[in-house]
Amino acid sequence: MDLNADLGESFGAFQVGEDQLLLDCITSANIACGFHGGDFNVMEQTVRLAKERGVAVGAHPGLPDIMGFGRRVIDVTPEEVYRMLIYQIGALNGFCKVHGVTMQHVKPHGALYHMANQREDIADEVVRATKDSGDGLILFAMSQSKLHHAAEKAGITVAREAFADRTYTLNGELTPRREPSAVIKDRHQLLEHVEELLVNGRVRATDGTLVPMEVDTLCFHGDGESAVPHIEMVISWMKNQGIGVQKAGECNE
Amino acid sequence: MDLNADLGESFGAFQVGEDQLLLDCITSANIACGFHGGDFNVMEQTVRLAKERGVAVGAHPGLPDIMGFGRRVIDVTPEEVYRMLIYQIGALNGFCKVHGVTMQHVKPHGALYHMANQREDIADEVVRATKDSGDGLILFAMSQSKLHHAAEKAGITVAREAFADRTYTLNGELTPRREPSAVIKDRHQLLEHVEELLVNGRVRATDGTLVPMEVDTLCFHGDGESAVPHIEMVISWMKNQGIGVQKAGECNE
Amino acid sequence: MDLNADLGESFGAFQVGEDQLLLDCITSANIACGFHGGDFNVMEQTVRLAKERGVAVGAHPGLPDIMGFGRRVIDVTPEEVYRMLIYQIGALNGFCKVHGVTMQHVKPHGALYHMANQREDIADEVVRATKDSGDGLILFAMSQSKLHHAAEKAGITVAREAFADRTYTLNGELTPRREPSAVIKDRHQLLEHVEELLVNGRVRATDGTLVPMEVDTLCFHGDGESAVPHIEMVISWMKNQGIGVQKAGECNE
Amino acid sequence: MDLNADLGESFGAFQVGEDQLLLDCITSANIACGFHGGDFNVMEQTVRLAKERGVAVGAHPGLPDIMGFGRRVIDVTPEEVYRMLIYQIGALNGFCKVHGVTMQHVKPHGALYHMANQREDIADEVVRATKDSGDGLILFAMSQSKLHHAAEKAGITVAREAFADRTYTLNGELTPRREPSAVIKDRHQLLEHVEELLVNGRVRATDGTLVPMEVDTLCFHGDGESAVPHIEMVISWMKNQGIGVQKAGECNE
Repeated sequence: MDLNADLGESFGAFQVGEDQLLLDCITSANIACGFHGGDFNVMEQTVRLAKERGVAVGAHPGLPDIMGFGRRVIDVTPEEVYRMLIYQIGALNGFCKVHGVTMQHVKPHGALYHMANQREDIADEVVRATKDSGDGLILFAMSQSKLHHAAEKAGITVAREAFADRTYTLNGELTPRREPSAVIKDRHQLLEHVEELLVNGRVRATDGTLVPMEVDTLCFHGDGESAVPHIEMVISWMKNQGIGVQKAGECNE
Repeated sequence: MDLNADLGESFGAFQVGEDQLLLDCITSANIACGFHGGDFNVMEQTVRLAKERGVAVGAHPGLPDIMGFGRRVIDVTPEEVYRMLIYQIGALNGFCKVHGVTMQHVKPHGALYHMANQREDIADEVVRATKDSGDGLILFAMSQSKLHHAAEKAGITVAREAFADRTYTLNGELTPRREPSAVIKDRHQLLEHVEELLVNGRVRATDGTLVPMEVDTLCFHGDGESAVPHIEMVISWMKNQGIGVQKAGECNE
Repeated sequence: MDLNADLGESFGAFQVGEDQLLLDCITSANIACGFHGGDFNVMEQTVRLAKERGVAVGAHPGLPDIMGFGRRVIDVTPEEVYRMLIYQIGALNGFCKVHGVTMQHVKPHGALYHMANQREDIADEVVRATKDSGDGLILFAMSQSKLHHAAEKAGITVAREAFADRTYTLNGELTPRREPSAVIKDRHQLLEHVEELLVNGRVRATDGTLVPMEVDTLCFHGDGESAVPHIEMVISWMKNQGIGVQKAGECNE
Repeated sequence: MDLNADLGESFGAFQVGEDQLLLDCITSANIACGFHGGDFNVMEQTVRLAKERGVAVGAHPGLPDIMGFGRRVIDVTPEEVYRMLIYQIGALNGFCKVHGVTMQHVKPHGALYHMANQREDIADEVVRATKDSGDGLILFAMSQSKLHHAAEKAGITVAREAFADRTYTLNGELTPRREPSAVIKDRHQLLEHVEELLVNGRVRATDGTLVPMEVDTLCFHGDGESAVPHIEMVISWMKNQGIGVQKAGECNE
């Protein structure tokens, strides 16, 4: 099992996230590329720190919207999605090259992630951009989403992602952030949720339904106050369960 | 002699330049990377068109300032300059990869170009970013500038650049744009200026002084109305003089 | 009949529109407020020029999206629409105050205009922001749109707007810009369209249907090459027809 | 004595400052206007909260630079400074109008504040913009600065400002933020510094020199962790000293 988190989302003087602490816990870092968060200073530092801690580096491209943190749907064409990914992955690749790091994966951010999971035309362009940006790049996608299927069709490796601290609807989609129940803050609820995912391969949706969900990589959000305690709790539980933790790129598929 | 121009500086719905026409005249394109102008759509298209016309592709990174078009000095540190170049060159490299193009050169834009030509600490970081971004990348720099010398010291190839449509001060620097005499609009003055440069290796500064100036690549600005007629006139004159036109990367140095 | 155009949409070094020429033709200027186009320099100049030419000043607020020129739908809440209007109208009011001008009207731009015409919740907030920003501000809205009705319900003055150079669907909405037939470029077609509007109070939709459409203000786009010839042609035709031209704020309703 | 702090500097999803807590301590709020921080949502909320708590509202305009938080010098002309202030003060005035608040003062932010304190041409334009934006607006300026003198010359009211948590050079200027000693973090040092200011009308510069400095309003920075404890400590000390706390607009000058 791979553990991932979104890192490097600070922008200029605006600091977000517990990057330093998270890098001690996770195996894969999704590094913001300057469109929804992150900037050239933050990216350089985050790639450098990820390398030092032995954490795999991935691109975390978003919609061009600092003010909305990439969480607002913007009406962009599939071709534009392709090009904004090529741009952002290329920019991050610049820092990977400088630090002698090989990029492991791509995970779209926020509204772009949802659009890619839900719309086939967007999914196809995300897959194409990932394929064109480097050999062997793994794509992170929601299990059974349009993005998951588009990647399989195109023959690129997918890591099926589930969120440790988010609830799901009965369609297997994330509960929208505007709903009060969207983010799991209670540690017991979180552990139960992770247990369902990792042991039983399913989630209990907000209406109680059990939805099958296979997972290769588990995402933790770094912007909550208790991100680090939560992830430590999960790691400790995984150890007890004998579930190994390793980078997405090193898992047997 | 190489002929270069700044291309791909449109941004979203804001169109600037005569890119299509210029691509038929020049040998090297300096392509904006989204910081002072250009965006992921424009970059993709410009790299594609340059390839189709057989024009060499270079990165044209600028200060992060769309509103100021990268022409306003912003107080950034040398380390930030390094990182903003790695970012922008990396982003353009994404499109080069997609189109099977090898990037030929790097030429900083506007205020960043002037800062790099005038300040040793900035020059060193521009050189370092160019070197770290790819083997064999040529750096465009003003003849005898700090940037020129920093590149030579670091052992990377420089193309000494002069401007066909700009006047010079007696220090061999460009007359600032706010001066009325900064831009050469008269075709006779322009041809005389180019003749001094290409035949005699010097420029006549605004105060009349003759300043030695060796040149490997000649820059034309694409945003003036008469950019294309001017460049055609110069090419025709060069042909008559027996001065060959070829890409910076193919010139013998 | 009032004649309006969108002005002051240049941004920094990026120039768009034929503002100087248009100001000699129109009676009401919709001045961009820095979110989709325009900046503090352009706004100051445009208010000053409008005053000099005796053209009424209106705010032309847009979505916060320079790259998309405010034409892309962005997922914002109605409350955010209210606040982005208060901000932009307030900013333009700063320049009106400096130049001793009383703002005449408000006309949302691009995607925001369409959202306000089509969605009741957005329409209500646009009306509320207009009402709260100043006594007697006129709102420009499409005839029979949600925005039109929301304004009437709230008791603020509406100028029903039609576009001289755009085609309509059978629902009385503008043909989307991505359709080839969206913009009327032919002068005969344009004159016929204006005649239907001004003489018969209707438009011929793209499918041939005649749709009733009452109009108080006629909009011309300044970004087309032939904007000024077109508007001059229409004014000359109006003169022959005995249709008077006056500011929206001076028309009898 | 007036106590002021910079508020409303969050931007979109990026949260900074302890606005809620500070509003219980201070008498004057300098509210960011969207150029260096703040946005239309944050501004609306901050004006509303300031009114609820009885805190006077001021505009805190900055250079157009979200990434640099307005702390980087950008090469803008004095005329541009005038216009960017008219824009930002106007925008904030929109929210003041909505909430029935009369704006009390203007205090430029960051690099703009320093430029205005140090350069006469910039100072003159800041004064002119303040004067043109509303009758009776008070300008916050460093004691004996160019800005202070320009305001007096123009006959507008100045509140001489000193910083509770910043050290000074022997010229009476703030120690630049890049110096380790720039920000006072120690509570004893801070109290000593405030005591010198409020009791003896002077500061002890970093080289030990005592520099005379009269002060009408004392600024606390909200972005430090200990902003609120520090300000509470100072208020408690002032109470013991019998130094009254009241809004700048209500002080006798």
